[in-house]
Amino acid sequence: MAQITFKFEQGEDIVIFANEGENLLEVAKKANVAIDAPCSGNVSCGKCKVKLVGGEIDSPITRHISEEEYAQGYRLACNSKVTGDVAVLIPDISAAYRSRMKIADLNSPEEIKIFNDIKEQVNEAGLPFTNSFSVVQATMDEPTMDDTMPDNERLRWKLTEVLGCDNIKITYFALTKLPEVMRNANFDVKVVVKKEEEKYYVMDVFPATEDVKAYGLAVDIGTTTVSMVLVDMANGEILAKGSSGNGQIRYGADVINRIIQQNQPGGIETLKKAVIEETINPIVANMAKSAKIKPTQIYSMLVASNTTMNHLFMGIPADYLRMEPFIPTFFETEAPTGKDLGVNINPHAEIGIAPNIGSYVGGDITAGTLSSMIWNFPELSLFIDLGTNGEIVFGNADFLVSCACSAGPAFEGGDISCGMRATDGAIESITIDKETMEPTYSVIGDEGQKPVGLCGSGIIDIIYELFTCGIITPKGKFCREGKRIKHDEYGIGSYVIAFKEDAESVKDIELTEVDIDNFIRAKGAIFSAINVMLEMMDMDVSLLEKVFVAGGIGSGINMQKAVCIGMLPDIPLEMYKYIGNSSLSGAYCMIMSDEANAKVSELSKSMTYIELSNHPGYMDEFQAACFLPHTNASLFPSLEMK
Amino acid sequence: MAQITFKFEQGEDIVIFANEGENLLEVAKKANVAIDAPCSGNVSCGKCKVKLVGGEIDSPITRHISEEEYAQGYRLACNSKVTGDVAVLIPDISAAYRSRMKIADLNSPEEIKIFNDIKEQVNEAGLPFTNSFSVVQATMDEPTMDDTMPDNERLRWKLTEVLGCDNIKITYFALTKLPEVMRNANFDVKVVVKKEEEKYYVMDVFPATEDVKAYGLAVDIGTTTVSMVLVDMANGEILAKGSSGNGQIRYGADVINRIIQQNQPGGIETLKKAVIEETINPIVANMAKSAKIKPTQIYSMLVASNTTMNHLFMGIPADYLRMEPFIPTFFETEAPTGKDLGVNINPHAEIGIAPNIGSYVGGDITAGTLSSMIWNFPELSLFIDLGTNGEIVFGNADFLVSCACSAGPAFEGGDISCGMRATDGAIESITIDKETMEPTYSVIGDEGQKPVGLCGSGIIDIIYELFTCGIITPKGKFCREGKRIKHDEYGIGSYVIAFKEDAESVKDIELTEVDIDNFIRAKGAIFSAINVMLEMMDMDVSLLEKVFVAGGIGSGINMQKAVCIGMLPDIPLEMYKYIGNSSLSGAYCMIMSDEANAKVSELSKSMTYIELSNHPGYMDEFQAACFLPHTNASLFPSLEMK
Repeated sequence: MAQITFKFEQGEDIVIFANEGENLLEVAKKANVAIDAPCSGNVSCGKCKVKLVGGEIDSPITRHISEEEYAQGYRLACNSKVTGDVAVLIPDISAAYRSRMKIADLNSPEEIKIFNDIKEQVNEAGLPFTNSFSVVQATMDEPTMDDTMPDNERLRWKLTEVLGCDNIKITYFALTKLPEVMRNANFDVKVVVKKEEEKYYVMDVFPATEDVKAYGLAVDIGTTTVSMVLVDMANGEILAKGSSGNGQIRYGADVINRIIQQNQPGGIETLKKAVIEETINPIVANMAKSAKIKPTQIYSMLVASNTTMNHLFMGIPADYLRMEPFIPTFFETEAPTGKDLGVNINPHAEIGIAPNIGSYVGGDITAGTLSSMIWNFPELSLFIDLGTNGEIVFGNADFLVSCACSAGPAFEGGDISCGMRATDGAIESITIDKETMEPTYSVIGDEGQKPVGLCGSGIIDIIYELFTCGIITPKGKFCREGKRIKHDEYGIGSYVIAFKEDAESVKDIELTEVDIDNFIRAKGAIFSAINVMLEMMDMDVSLLEKVFVAGGIGSGINMQKAVCIGMLPDIPLEMYKYIGNSSLSGAYCMIMSDEANAKVSELSKSMTYIELSNHPGYMDEFQAACFLPHTNASLFPSLEMK
Repeated sequence: MAQITFKFEQGEDIVIFANEGENLLEVAKKANVAIDAPCSGNVSCGKCKVKLVGGEIDSPITRHISEEEYAQGYRLACNSKVTGDVAVLIPDISAAYRSRMKIADLNSPEEIKIFNDIKEQVNEAGLPFTNSFSVVQATMDEPTMDDTMPDNERLRWKLTEVLGCDNIKITYFALTKLPEVMRNANFDVKVVVKKEEEKYYVMDVFPATEDVKAYGLAVDIGTTTVSMVLVDMANGEILAKGSSGNGQIRYGADVINRIIQQNQPGGIETLKKAVIEETINPIVANMAKSAKIKPTQIYSMLVASNTTMNHLFMGIPADYLRMEPFIPTFFETEAPTGKDLGVNINPHAEIGIAPNIGSYVGGDITAGTLSSMIWNFPELSLFIDLGTNGEIVFGNADFLVSCACSAGPAFEGGDISCGMRATDGAIESITIDKETMEPTYSVIGDEGQKPVGLCGSGIIDIIYELFTCGIITPKGKFCREGKRIKHDEYGIGSYVIAFKEDAESVKDIELTEVDIDNFIRAKGAIFSAINVMLEMMDMDVSLLEKVFVAGGIGSGINMQKAVCIGMLPDIPLEMYKYIGNSSLSGAYCMIMSDEANAKVSELSKSMTYIELSNHPGYMDEFQAACFLPHTNASLFPSLEMK
């Protein structure tokens, strides 16, 4: 047995024993050490770099590791075999991509604007923010030797009077609190009740002297990132906002690899635990702390996520989603409770799941469609969610059709060597001087934040700049030389945006031809999907009047540049609107408004799914779109004009 | 810090570190070592004897330890202070009293007779064994590319047809099993459904080829012992029967001491864990194994227990049960689920609690009243439950009144130095030769089983024999001398039933004057309670036509002897019937029959509770009954005749 020591920039070492010959990435998984491995250990993405700091390991040099890096001790974990005792450092770039948990500063109006906006729009569309939760006071007589009614009957008796309903159930959680709270409060209490089918459920009980509110939690479980808001169920006020990387990331960057991992022995529990115990529960705990409440005061939760994510979250085998005939276990389902799933909120809180419409279009899109508002417009509109996959919904108040395309995770920084999410340290916009080829960029974060990597909007910018400055060809190959242009031993070119001296990184922040190729295929998938979808409806982009772009690409997205590289159709820029995380804002509406919830259910039932691969010309369309901007440049008159 | 080693006759040592000066009984509790301490460590019962086998401990000699025993190393754990490293042996007498888990041999007709009998009686009384559970088959079409309905809708669609009801809910547990089971079974499945208010809940799913049954669990949680039966919900067949000591015993033998312990920091969880994780779950696991089912196939559970036990079981503060005005948190309550309480059965199984009628008359008595059948007779009848406390119900088909008395645990062997439950090794009956004073006894267990201690029926026998042989006075003091009569250094007399050479015990099995005194007070409490209760109703024992005796006293109870020592009223012996564990047989009826369940609810609401202490003459009656047979011997003409 060999002793493997994982070291971190911050925090304590993790030590585990492994057999000789074992794969280092597998050992790390066993030790619960999160190493990014978007390709699931196929030696293809080069993300799982670790640094040898003691002992030796059997690991060849590959194109992902330069000779200089190799000399410094960098190795790909997935390409390393244990040969004896060894110590490795998990570099910070990995932690940055994994993204540390973030509890938002709600004093920043930007953080909550999206929720205030959507509340207004949804209410105006006739879906009021009313739900089944309320807080009522019950002032009871104290028991005496002549009045020995038990605590639960005493409360029920009073609530029957207060609520005008005699069908009152007391949850087990509330029952366990009753005797102490009633006596501490001199039998004057406030209770949180939920109304359901002419019944009231007592969810919790507090002394009447306390300021009691019912709280809800809207959650977007993305393949890459989990985001959530804690809300006051009475008025929709945002009390906390948090996010972190999805802890399942170490089991693969995309849904297919996750499903494969779930199929391993114990995989169902492992994947469920990664998203619930290691991701959601810690965020909830921190948000509750920041809002000064107990997690048990969260009485309702609403999850919007893609079909694979909600199956994995629920601990349901997802293997049949990826195998013909691609059948999910559910579109809509009875809500499990906090206790059922092990989510640390009130044990009786129901966890609603935004409805899926198929294996490839899930609750993230149905919830997102609600908050795009396209169902409320007479105009033909497009809603594009640039998540780890790309999904597109087209229609108006009369009809809705949807499709999905395998865009991959490039828009969120996945499949890009220096890619990262749109968080602190991400380069979100960039310009390049055509003459000197020197870049000017802005970085997300406080004044003086050094760059760590590139987020989606930064990648769009740099590809636009490299292309329009004539530094790369329409095929994405470098065609100029200079200080910032490098070629590795395999001949692969790259552009250095920030040398490592100027960055918070162990190596230069650069964009390689492999990255550009990955991105071009991603943008080609989106562009061709839009066109094929419209074609299948006998329409074209000239009929579009509004386009809503959502997803983790970052609010810094420059629509003009996105159009000019052939990612989005060349229609007037004012038709485009970036709406942020529509999945989360949709979940927010669904938890606050019973009518919005019903509307999503209605939309999901009426939305038609179009399978793009059934279109005979789809592959040709996709190939044609894998150029800058497109093999048919006439589709992009705006660029021509430039 | 000192190292404390607990050694056992069987099994591995348990080692824990403790500070000097710490109480050994407290250290044992921390280490989760079960030592019987019925008096909760007040140095009054003498039950917590341990044997020093290494090191030293600061522990004085007391009347519970003879000089010989002290020399052999016996110490009272509750009276011992840690002074340094020490090793103690937990003697077997303790383990015997604690009672090992027992899974009954169902081939023995005695074990199931009580359930067959009560089923017949209850059915004849118009309460059929019908309930909300059933098993139905659903044969579905397999999904195709043209029929992509998700699994849950496919099942629901078919069940709507099979059940003729379109309100079908699928539990979270069943949902997680759906995709695998449906495909393994080629979409031909059997489901366990529960009907509730025009809704069906799918509790579980199996391939149609399996023999699928819905199982239920009836449980009696006694203060001393937990007993249960696993039943086929379709017909009431008993599939397994198990019991073990209540793991809470180490926190005190009676309900008051348990409540005091629950009030300690962490006490709610500790007491709940002791009865659920350490007692119920292991029995369930063993019963399921013996019946060859999974615990998740238990879809319903019904608990009958006294008010304190059901509060402790539910994790509800019970402190207000013992403090004026003695208010329980509930009489009847919404059923928590297996998941709510951590009982290892189906997570969605509802755990019904037989209704309490007050702090001192609980669900064990309401369920027991059902199975006594006194509510179904025109004749005036008495139902007496000799549990750790004594409860009495009097009435007939027209009315029911109940009372409780502090009889203490003597009938189950508690408060008696060599007392034990009616299990292997217990002396259950005895006669003494008037001349030689030599005993002849029978022991529960296999041929050749040596005596370990005395159970309730044995104690009744020996007191009767000692009294009628003129060995003890009506006050319970020894008045003859002989080989078997001993007096300790404090002058306390005792009668040796079995010398240690003939017993499976480290010391002689004897009955002391302290034991006799404890028992006389217990029987006096029962007798005076019966009389005062009848007096308060302006009645007397001559009106009684049937008396049902229940409880852990043992089926060996000799009613004639019980009458002659003044424990039960002197009425014709044929009126008496021992009905065993009525709490368990009542729970069995409640789980099998929705109408029996409703009947218990109805009985509990109509039953009047009489507080004996409100009767001015109660204390006098009690004092008068604390003699053999009674200060007024004319109440016992049968004995006079002898």
